[in-house]
Amino acid sequence: MIRGKQDDYPTLSEILQSYSALQNKVENFVNMKPGFFFVFSAEKIEGSRGPYYICTVGDSRIRIESKAWIGDSGVIEPRAGHIALADYMHDEKYGLSIKVKRNFTPDEMEAYSAGSITKLIPVISNIAALRSEIQRLIESVKNEFLRELLDSLLGKNGSCQEFFDSPAAKTYHHALIGGLASHSLQVARYALGIYELSPSRDSIDRDILVVAALLHDIGKVKTYSTDDYAFEYTDRGQLEEHIAIGIRILERAIVKIDGFPETLASELIHAIISHHGELQYGSPVTPKTREAFILALCDNLDARLDHFESMAAVTQEDSSWTEYSRMFQSRLYKGNH
Amino acid sequence: MIRGKQDDYPTLSEILQSYSALQNKVENFVNMKPGFFFVFSAEKIEGSRGPYYICTVGDSRIRIESKAWIGDSGVIEPRAGHIALADYMHDEKYGLSIKVKRNFTPDEMEAYSAGSITKLIPVISNIAALRSEIQRLIESVKNEFLRELLDSLLGKNGSCQEFFDSPAAKTYHHALIGGLASHSLQVARYALGIYELSPSRDSIDRDILVVAALLHDIGKVKTYSTDDYAFEYTDRGQLEEHIAIGIRILERAIVKIDGFPETLASELIHAIISHHGELQYGSPVTPKTREAFILALCDNLDARLDHFESMAAVTQEDSSWTEYSRMFQSRLYKGNH
Amino acid sequence: MIRGKQDDYPTLSEILQSYSALQNKVENFVNMKPGFFFVFSAEKIEGSRGPYYICTVGDSRIRIESKAWIGDSGVIEPRAGHIALADYMHDEKYGLSIKVKRNFTPDEMEAYSAGSITKLIPVISNIAALRSEIQRLIESVKNEFLRELLDSLLGKNGSCQEFFDSPAAKTYHHALIGGLASHSLQVARYALGIYELSPSRDSIDRDILVVAALLHDIGKVKTYSTDDYAFEYTDRGQLEEHIAIGIRILERAIVKIDGFPETLASELIHAIISHHGELQYGSPVTPKTREAFILALCDNLDARLDHFESMAAVTQEDSSWTEYSRMFQSRLYKGNH
Amino acid sequence: MIRGKQDDYPTLSEILQSYSALQNKVENFVNMKPGFFFVFSAEKIEGSRGPYYICTVGDSRIRIESKAWIGDSGVIEPRAGHIALADYMHDEKYGLSIKVKRNFTPDEMEAYSAGSITKLIPVISNIAALRSEIQRLIESVKNEFLRELLDSLLGKNGSCQEFFDSPAAKTYHHALIGGLASHSLQVARYALGIYELSPSRDSIDRDILVVAALLHDIGKVKTYSTDDYAFEYTDRGQLEEHIAIGIRILERAIVKIDGFPETLASELIHAIISHHGELQYGSPVTPKTREAFILALCDNLDARLDHFESMAAVTQEDSSWTEYSRMFQSRLYKGNH
Amino acid sequence: MIRGKQDDYPTLSEILQSYSALQNKVENFVNMKPGFFFVFSAEKIEGSRGPYYICTVGDSRIRIESKAWIGDSGVIEPRAGHIALADYMHDEKYGLSIKVKRNFTPDEMEAYSAGSITKLIPVISNIAALRSEIQRLIESVKNEFLRELLDSLLGKNGSCQEFFDSPAAKTYHHALIGGLASHSLQVARYALGIYELSPSRDSIDRDILVVAALLHDIGKVKTYSTDDYAFEYTDRGQLEEHIAIGIRILERAIVKIDGFPETLASELIHAIISHHGELQYGSPVTPKTREAFILALCDNLDARLDHFESMAAVTQEDSSWTEYSRMFQSRLYKGNH
Amino acid sequence: MIRGKQDDYPTLSEILQSYSALQNKVENFVNMKPGFFFVFSAEKIEGSRGPYYICTVGDSRIRIESKAWIGDSGVIEPRAGHIALADYMHDEKYGLSIKVKRNFTPDEMEAYSAGSITKLIPVISNIAALRSEIQRLIESVKNEFLRELLDSLLGKNGSCQEFFDSPAAKTYHHALIGGLASHSLQVARYALGIYELSPSRDSIDRDILVVAALLHDIGKVKTYSTDDYAFEYTDRGQLEEHIAIGIRILERAIVKIDGFPETLASELIHAIISHHGELQYGSPVTPKTREAFILALCDNLDARLDHFESMAAVTQEDSSWTEYSRMFQSRLYKGNH
Repeated sequence: MIRGKQDDYPTLSEILQSYSALQNKVENFVNMKPGFFFVFSAEKIEGSRGPYYICTVGDSRIRIESKAWIGDSGVIEPRAGHIALADYMHDEKYGLSIKVKRNFTPDEMEAYSAGSITKLIPVISNIAALRSEIQRLIESVKNEFLRELLDSLLGKNGSCQEFFDSPAAKTYHHALIGGLASHSLQVARYALGIYELSPSRDSIDRDILVVAALLHDIGKVKTYSTDDYAFEYTDRGQLEEHIAIGIRILERAIVKIDGFPETLASELIHAIISHHGELQYGSPVTPKTREAFILALCDNLDARLDHFESMAAVTQEDSSWTEYSRMFQSRLYKGNH
Repeated sequence: MIRGKQDDYPTLSEILQSYSALQNKVENFVNMKPGFFFVFSAEKIEGSRGPYYICTVGDSRIRIESKAWIGDSGVIEPRAGHIALADYMHDEKYGLSIKVKRNFTPDEMEAYSAGSITKLIPVISNIAALRSEIQRLIESVKNEFLRELLDSLLGKNGSCQEFFDSPAAKTYHHALIGGLASHSLQVARYALGIYELSPSRDSIDRDILVVAALLHDIGKVKTYSTDDYAFEYTDRGQLEEHIAIGIRILERAIVKIDGFPETLASELIHAIISHHGELQYGSPVTPKTREAFILALCDNLDARLDHFESMAAVTQEDSSWTEYSRMFQSRLYKGNH
Repeated sequence: MIRGKQDDYPTLSEILQSYSALQNKVENFVNMKPGFFFVFSAEKIEGSRGPYYICTVGDSRIRIESKAWIGDSGVIEPRAGHIALADYMHDEKYGLSIKVKRNFTPDEMEAYSAGSITKLIPVISNIAALRSEIQRLIESVKNEFLRELLDSLLGKNGSCQEFFDSPAAKTYHHALIGGLASHSLQVARYALGIYELSPSRDSIDRDILVVAALLHDIGKVKTYSTDDYAFEYTDRGQLEEHIAIGIRILERAIVKIDGFPETLASELIHAIISHHGELQYGSPVTPKTREAFILALCDNLDARLDHFESMAAVTQEDSSWTEYSRMFQSRLYKGNH
Repeated sequence: MIRGKQDDYPTLSEILQSYSALQNKVENFVNMKPGFFFVFSAEKIEGSRGPYYICTVGDSRIRIESKAWIGDSGVIEPRAGHIALADYMHDEKYGLSIKVKRNFTPDEMEAYSAGSITKLIPVISNIAALRSEIQRLIESVKNEFLRELLDSLLGKNGSCQEFFDSPAAKTYHHALIGGLASHSLQVARYALGIYELSPSRDSIDRDILVVAALLHDIGKVKTYSTDDYAFEYTDRGQLEEHIAIGIRILERAIVKIDGFPETLASELIHAIISHHGELQYGSPVTPKTREAFILALCDNLDARLDHFESMAAVTQEDSSWTEYSRMFQSRLYKGNH
Repeated sequence: MIRGKQDDYPTLSEILQSYSALQNKVENFVNMKPGFFFVFSAEKIEGSRGPYYICTVGDSRIRIESKAWIGDSGVIEPRAGHIALADYMHDEKYGLSIKVKRNFTPDEMEAYSAGSITKLIPVISNIAALRSEIQRLIESVKNEFLRELLDSLLGKNGSCQEFFDSPAAKTYHHALIGGLASHSLQVARYALGIYELSPSRDSIDRDILVVAALLHDIGKVKTYSTDDYAFEYTDRGQLEEHIAIGIRILERAIVKIDGFPETLASELIHAIISHHGELQYGSPVTPKTREAFILALCDNLDARLDHFESMAAVTQEDSSWTEYSRMFQSRLYKGNH
Repeated sequence: MIRGKQDDYPTLSEILQSYSALQNKVENFVNMKPGFFFVFSAEKIEGSRGPYYICTVGDSRIRIESKAWIGDSGVIEPRAGHIALADYMHDEKYGLSIKVKRNFTPDEMEAYSAGSITKLIPVISNIAALRSEIQRLIESVKNEFLRELLDSLLGKNGSCQEFFDSPAAKTYHHALIGGLASHSLQVARYALGIYELSPSRDSIDRDILVVAALLHDIGKVKTYSTDDYAFEYTDRGQLEEHIAIGIRILERAIVKIDGFPETLASELIHAIISHHGELQYGSPVTPKTREAFILALCDNLDARLDHFESMAAVTQEDSSWTEYSRMFQSRLYKGNH
């Protein structure tokens, strides 16, 4: 809930979570209730009974389509990039409708209710902490070539600062500004956890593992547009896909490092480009090294769990099952624990 | 190397590892050199130039086929279940040949060279430590039904003591007595490592995760015969496969626990039977819970890394690439680190 | 047609069958015509021009979605679990709409028109005959262990009486109360027919074949909820799927039979769990015995033909082709014979 | 066993069946024992220690490769197309070796031991009975066009007499002269059995079912060469495969029947060309009619069971498992019943 | 643009091409603008606010669904098979709506604006030129049997004149009257281009290549109905698919040519029936000859490029990407060149 | 045949071609006949009856394994990298054996018989002509950035001269020094041929097509080792595969060209990395542009036809069918034309 001047108002995730079968009754619809919605896009439509808007609205965790009705007294037009305070009604079959009462710019919103922005806009909240942890990981790399490579991209003066401003996917997982850094770091954490516990520990190259984990999705900095937080594919994203873009970014960085050993480059690039695990998922080569196996599985695990939590986050609290997940071709069981 | 009375003799793994391209010369074959070989099986063949034996020989890490020539002075017949001290020659194309000079029973071998047995017979060495760690994990389970279930199977007086005497697979990974316990425990360790690091930590049921990890392959206690350490499939293993056998073992144990909640049983069984991840790999249902996803990936990871080490263990030291792995449909890169 | 007090009224299947392209004209819609509809579910919606209902309605053979308009004079609200006498209009593109004139409970309906219930509610009509035939099959089993197992589950005092009250699938085939018994019996009939005609007759174990055929889908008694005849998946159904549930039910029954031979149990369970024929269809093991091959193919045949008839039953009489079948990824040709 | 003048001698199938693990000892090889072998082919090889032969030998049920040693006193050369009375030794690893003592032409063999030919040469024994049953099925077809079509191909004066002289496959099933007629008839029997038992009986076109069953593999008359019973693919067999050849044979026959209804032709051809069930198995269209579904499954069933019996026929009597079947990608369980 | 009496009016392809994001505004919808639309089908619907039509409308390159509103003054009903001059509005989300002002028969249309028909109706414009080029190709065939076969089907007095009146597919590519001839000829052109450039030129049979290219889709003359240019599948099309129909047409033609060499027929038919390249795409045999490989790839190339142009033709001019293509499971990049 | 001092001697390809079934008789083996063999590798083996060699021998078109017997009078040891004049015998089952009479260095061989080298060593003969044609193609590129890129790699002073010294594959096609240039050029020729004939000609970017065709396999310069003409995979070849290596080579070259437009780079790289057509064949993205579709199909065609000719080149002249091709999973039909 976001604290307003006089009352608390829910975000879309909260609306969907608290939406119990019991309440799904006609009574709900007569007295509309207000909530906060970030408006990702809004297009005016000339309907048979007058104009209305088709919008994508949501908060930091979810985005869905909504109609915005206009014309009633006190109801104003939605504006893309603004936060709408709006009455809403939601129906499982026909989805969401809103009537906007007031539009806030992000700054106005933050002024209205401090801290509310991180709940409403898909921007990661703890980016400074992520940066620090990544910096410490850079410094922990012992091989000087690998450390220099990583530093030249993600370090304080690194050439790839978009890394901290990119999403990790369009919708499936970590679809928020900073999601790429967040996902990459979590994969590195998992990989190091596995490394510490593994009977193969002495044979695993920790440096390659850390660097490959942090850079495995580096190509995603050019794969998605961040305009209006819509995370649409760029032309490059569609023509090259993030693995090929990643190779190009890495090659440009490697060229600049004198004496970067060819075998080391090859081992690192192998782990990075094989991280989808199988050719049919877009890796041009399958994993063949210990580091590549660990990376592929940790990447898979983090993507799955984050997607799981996205699905669970918008599931009604009294339901054990999420909606159908296209990623898993199944509904997921979140249980009632 | 195994210390003999007067000299040190290699095991098969050591022979294959030290087998460099440089040494692969005809000179090697004229003066046969002795080594120790566990004889898994031996069948006498009437060849066109007299009788000889076809054997499976090896040590605790590997087993390959060998011919055993007889008839020369001082050369005796190989005996299944014994350790042979034998001259050998090895050729990449035609494989291994041995001439047995002496046969040891396992007891005689241990008397001859203390501690040599664990290098020569595929029996895990640290089974007591595994038992202790598993016992501690049992005790860490807070849900009383799950703890009782786990204890009734793997605890001190548990009904499933074969768990500590079974291999985890025929050849691909953990193919040794105690391999099942070793693999199951390592999967539990990885799963707990992931659990501790996961942003989803609070939503994951640690008890189900631990119990499912330890019991995920429980059906393997009836899947492989341990006669002569050959780990052949049993009739049940072929007719039911380990997942179905596991369900039957679990059901028998659950029946005996009064009031075992049906939903809990269902959640646990779900995680266990979905651990192959996809229907085409033999799971009758795909993972749909957080615990199931973590288990499937940790199982996959441990199986892959153990298989990787098995392949690497018999690779010549100066080679970066293992032989072709049927599991990965590729040679694996162990590097030269 | 169901004989009413003054007139005969069609069921939904009959409406769809007699629905010729010729009649699909606007004239149809002005004078609504009454028919009988079982109301599986009904949810009230607040539309932009007043409230209406979204219902699932149908008869014993089919169920589709319908709108129920209210508000007109003489039109009442639909009630789940009741039979509606309702004017209807149907349009290929926009589907079915009804206006309910009268609601009957099942008892009232049977009083109104004897025998009409079996046409309107998805409940098999000849359950007593099925029971008798199954009982005779039980008695025909010569192996005492198998006969006792079968009798303990499906016999007169058997523990699994839900077998006679369950559907065999959610929608694809035999989706009606008693459908499980009906399908299982038909598979047994086909299997015995093949058995009698087969050159392999003397090598086939008739007892295993009969028992496996009757019990192959036994897990389905816990897979679908029969509330309101909606046949939704239960939690267990989604978490375990019917093959694993079946193993658990069988194991509980086998445990209670003293001296049940282990090999016999394994052979029986093999045939049952392999009946989907391939791993990718959810069997944890592929068929490896004669009985398993026959069972898998007879099961497949009965499911396909029943699905074919379900599709054909709602095809317009003058059309050779059914609607698109998702099961077969194609329209089906019923011809004009 | 085949009764010789003084003694009984086994065929190859009997040799392999009675070949128990117990007897697989060196003693077996010192005193060679005689048996009868049909010699499918024999090629002389100049080995490093003199010439010998590589042969394919067998009996009516099986064919395997063998070496034929020559040069010993009393040992003669094998001759393709003859039956050899030969001492033999068999070893699981190195296979079969024979020393031929006497060669019989088929006529001499039959004179030597009446009835022995059907055991030794892959020719079906009861071809006359098959012809009669097929003739009766032809006469049972009520549709005059279909009956005339069937009669014009398989009837007494039919144009396709090779139907009774062709195998149904190269090795997998019914690989003997007359196998095509035998398989086609058995599929028709199964299909009629299903037809009689089916709830869909009244909607199934029995005539199309019978004709399609008997003609579904008609293209195989041009697919395999029957020279020397080797059943090699012909050029046409490889370039067109039996389904396309079958279409051509049918089209030529249909052209000659005045007024053959186009729809009837299409329905018949549909059932025939879809009998492999899925595109990936070589059917250019998937089954879409009741008759096509029944035919595809009955064809599948007969091919599988016949293959099962071929595998079982050469399995040692005390073994529950056959050798690995490439058709099923598994060993098969014949049990010990 | 089609020149009318006073003004130029766009076709649907032009409407969709010039439809820029910028113009996609509500203002567009208030003043409807007229265009020409061929009406493929029109069905009257009784909507909740009065009757309207659901139509399929389009031009020679594209067909989409549209609503046709009636009831306004001056607005008339659409008629299938006629060209409508109609005001329209188009919305990315809700598609096309039209209000018909005038209906033309094709003849009236051509009288109204000469040459407009080829833009509006999916009929190829240059059929005479195609015929001439095909005739020259027929005459270029040196093998007399192949030339006679080709001539008997596609020559001046050929039996298969529907070849010039059939589409090559329902929607994906060359979906217009004459599309089959156009596609077949283009495949022949590509194949001859490859032939001339190939290092294998001397080993390729040019005659088989030409004949197979021109006849590879011959079965399509019976696969699609051309009624109302809807190109629906015929019964035969669904039951046999075009490859099997093609075999039947060829066999009938081959039967009539005395002495047609069997091997030649087999080689030709091989190339034709294998042209889908893989079993899973409906070819009953894979390519095994040089001619078959070239044909399969040239067919694939022409189908893909024609589909590409169809997609590009209705893409807005300022967009680099087409809509999602189901054929390629992706959007296509036409660039801005 | 290679003209020697007194006689003509065959190469291995000629031996296998002229090897008719008729001649495959024991008589062949008694009088060994001499031929020329390039020795790719030779390893001495200590056999049970004395030492011999396992060699890979062949000529410019084929390489197979052979035994080289030594010890006879006048027989010398084979030497890797030399041409052996050797008596040989060949047997379908046991393959090739040789007895070396004389060893030539390549220079000695050329002195012995001018021009023989190109028949014996897998080196393309017309590399100068290829270079000229490629140079002309470079000059034909109108876009200055693309021309400079191509020139900087393949031009006279280009950085990637290995392009003219590399094979295009290990065994399947163009497996000879210069094969990469030869294949790349032929793909460019085909692509330009298609371009000229295509109805899409005006929309295709000829420059991108030419450059992508010539560079599509550029990564292969680092994929295979050319030591001893064995064309083994390098470490980089296995770890990165040629598509990723190609991206790196291209990126390094693009970096050096000022102002290379980003979109142009993306379009070019798209065509190059998608040339395998589908993800499962190792392309990280599927083709989405006209140029990419044409390139993928022309590459496929040239690889297939070259492989076809390799198979045909070693097929006996009187046989219509090649040996089994692993690439096509079938034997190929070369016919008897």
